[in-house]
Amino acid sequence: MTRPLSVGIAGLGTVGTGVLTMLRENADVIAARAGRSIAVTAVSARDRTRDRGISLSGLRWYDDPVELAADPAVDVVVEVIGGSDGPARALVEAALAAKKPVVTANKALLAVHGAELAAMAEQTGVPLAFEAAVAGGIPVIKALREGLAGNRLSRVTGILNGTCNYILTVMRERGREFTEVLHEAQKLGYAEADPSFDVDGIDAAHKLAILAALAFGRPVAFDAVYVEGIRQVSAVDIAFAGELGYRIKLLGIARRTDAGIEARVHPCMVPLSAPIARVDGVFNAVVAEGDFVGRVMLEGRGAGAGPTASAVVADLVDLARGRFTPVWGAGSGALSDAPSVPMAAHVGAYYLRLMVVDRPGVIADVTAVLRDAGVSLESMLQHGRSPGEAVPVVLVTHETGEAAMRSALARIAALDAVLEEPALIRIETA
Amino acid sequence: MTRPLSVGIAGLGTVGTGVLTMLRENADVIAARAGRSIAVTAVSARDRTRDRGISLSGLRWYDDPVELAADPAVDVVVEVIGGSDGPARALVEAALAAKKPVVTANKALLAVHGAELAAMAEQTGVPLAFEAAVAGGIPVIKALREGLAGNRLSRVTGILNGTCNYILTVMRERGREFTEVLHEAQKLGYAEADPSFDVDGIDAAHKLAILAALAFGRPVAFDAVYVEGIRQVSAVDIAFAGELGYRIKLLGIARRTDAGIEARVHPCMVPLSAPIARVDGVFNAVVAEGDFVGRVMLEGRGAGAGPTASAVVADLVDLARGRFTPVWGAGSGALSDAPSVPMAAHVGAYYLRLMVVDRPGVIADVTAVLRDAGVSLESMLQHGRSPGEAVPVVLVTHETGEAAMRSALARIAALDAVLEEPALIRIETA
Repeated sequence: MTRPLSVGIAGLGTVGTGVLTMLRENADVIAARAGRSIAVTAVSARDRTRDRGISLSGLRWYDDPVELAADPAVDVVVEVIGGSDGPARALVEAALAAKKPVVTANKALLAVHGAELAAMAEQTGVPLAFEAAVAGGIPVIKALREGLAGNRLSRVTGILNGTCNYILTVMRERGREFTEVLHEAQKLGYAEADPSFDVDGIDAAHKLAILAALAFGRPVAFDAVYVEGIRQVSAVDIAFAGELGYRIKLLGIARRTDAGIEARVHPCMVPLSAPIARVDGVFNAVVAEGDFVGRVMLEGRGAGAGPTASAVVADLVDLARGRFTPVWGAGSGALSDAPSVPMAAHVGAYYLRLMVVDRPGVIADVTAVLRDAGVSLESMLQHGRSPGEAVPVVLVTHETGEAAMRSALARIAALDAVLEEPALIRIETA
Repeated sequence: MTRPLSVGIAGLGTVGTGVLTMLRENADVIAARAGRSIAVTAVSARDRTRDRGISLSGLRWYDDPVELAADPAVDVVVEVIGGSDGPARALVEAALAAKKPVVTANKALLAVHGAELAAMAEQTGVPLAFEAAVAGGIPVIKALREGLAGNRLSRVTGILNGTCNYILTVMRERGREFTEVLHEAQKLGYAEADPSFDVDGIDAAHKLAILAALAFGRPVAFDAVYVEGIRQVSAVDIAFAGELGYRIKLLGIARRTDAGIEARVHPCMVPLSAPIARVDGVFNAVVAEGDFVGRVMLEGRGAGAGPTASAVVADLVDLARGRFTPVWGAGSGALSDAPSVPMAAHVGAYYLRLMVVDRPGVIADVTAVLRDAGVSLESMLQHGRSPGEAVPVVLVTHETGEAAMRSALARIAALDAVLEEPALIRIETA
């Protein structure tokens, strides 16, 4: 065995202490697989006095993470501070500039600044590894960049945010509304005090941007991802979904079309027969579709100290073994320049649920608007009758353009007999 | 880009031609991910005249695969001949001796001779890659050796044979018996003319032996795998399984216990709530359980030209990039010497189905035998009554030792009122 790989960890929250713990508890297994020991020798965090339930004795301490990158005895920098800018970004840039390999769990940083960071890493010839940035412990980065490397991928679909999947699962199982379940999830620690990053789909969009870059071999393009969260999903829609043979999931979907790459995060109706429809609770899953391999699904825990540490340590083992892969799977000269396709160009089937006054002529008005917009209907669902009162009406369309659907929706919402903002959920058959 | 990686393929059946096709059709994507072109320059097969629907012009031809390994212009040898001995083994040994990296899809070869081949590869410092040997296109070798490298794994479970999974799925969906469904599968090309390798569990056992070696970091030990196939599974047991909340699957299970490594392939009752219970048809799946990552499942197509080629090409891309991993995930000096645990030491719950004469006292006799063997019952199931006729009776035990269960079973089978060989299926809760 050669000398130990000396690691500096910046950020000692849940993930940072998880990495420290894993490297210590599984030191024997890790050394065997890495061909050498991997030892943390330096750390950086804001508060030196906080009790993290783990010994930091013998480790060099840096208040400023950028100084950790300058420590000549640190071979590899692990960035688990988080955030797309600020100290995390400064640290990663400093490390790459100092020609030190970086392992990061930071999806926001990669989604927003990944293109520049990858260029920097390529210029200095230094690895920038980020298995932990997407889907926690599931080795999905490795699967896309290496395991399926021979395939032309047509599509990547994922349940990429455990908080949203947990909330949607509990809403379905108990027939409850979003706000109640969110509060409960916050009490249980499954959702943050400020949940917007998760429930508005931003976190999933960061991860999808990274997956799309890997799947289609092009630089990350976060701004081109269409994003819609789960706040508008209601218990009544989840119940109707069940009746129609669907589950509602927040999916990230990246797809290669003739026009370019489509990337979108939004609630979807997924047929119960699709394996991803059954992935419940805090679990994440990623489905990749390749021209030779067909459909491959990976499923596991997408967050938490253990799974995230598992991914960080896998990257460290790769570095210790000298295994190298370019950031987006190929060198910059071999990357694709496929354009991003805007959401308005999306074509698919739609679920539309209206609350209407139950009186003659309402359905005729609604369907006339759809007909005028060129939207054709596959089915309609209305239970019972309550003359003069509000009743839900569900319409399922055939394949329709997003732009046509949106304009029809605006006109339907403006009808007198339509009482609330209509609910629109896209149907994904794959 | 450096010069192309020159590949020699030995074996031009479905998989060999699939690899050739993939390397040609996806040459651009593959070159981008590999950092250089990958080109087949030589091939070996038995029949030079057969039409394989693919051009072989410009390729050097060898009747003898061992000569292909000696071709100085071949950088890497792809072995897709198959079989644990004969030309496949001779070729791989010749290639390693000539210090040429080998990519193989041959599970039988690795399961039976993998320990010696790995030692040879280590001595000569040459990569021996075999992603295609287990679960086809699913990158499970990479996941276990690299993606989950930081974890101490406690258990690996897999649906490793698509033929068996297809047969069991159709038996359940249509309520039909094994023999009928096998014949149909043979007509459809999902089962071989001589199906014993698949339906008797040998193929799954080869793959499990490899997974167990990777998961627990020890040399492969095929002889220590307990094997039982699916010929004895009957439609009535599949129906009872459904009623009890289970699915019957042929699983390969490798588990770390205090006594050592348990490795077994046999039909299992799996609770419907387990994700692996829902993996149907020709699909394969592997579930790994690690101390930090928790449960990770990978699912996809386990056989066929496309998926197998996908795995072979992924190995070639690794070689082209210079990414190297020791055969069992660690060098020989760092491998575990954990002993294999015999099946007689297995402890678990059992499903037992008897055909008995419906008359007073029979159940008392059966349960007396179980009591005397120290086997405790969780539940018993008998539908309707047919005095004097044969009726099925199902017994589900609590956790019991395999040895005790086996001896009780022999005594029960010998009872006058027990009409057929009893059916015994192990219940897996995980």
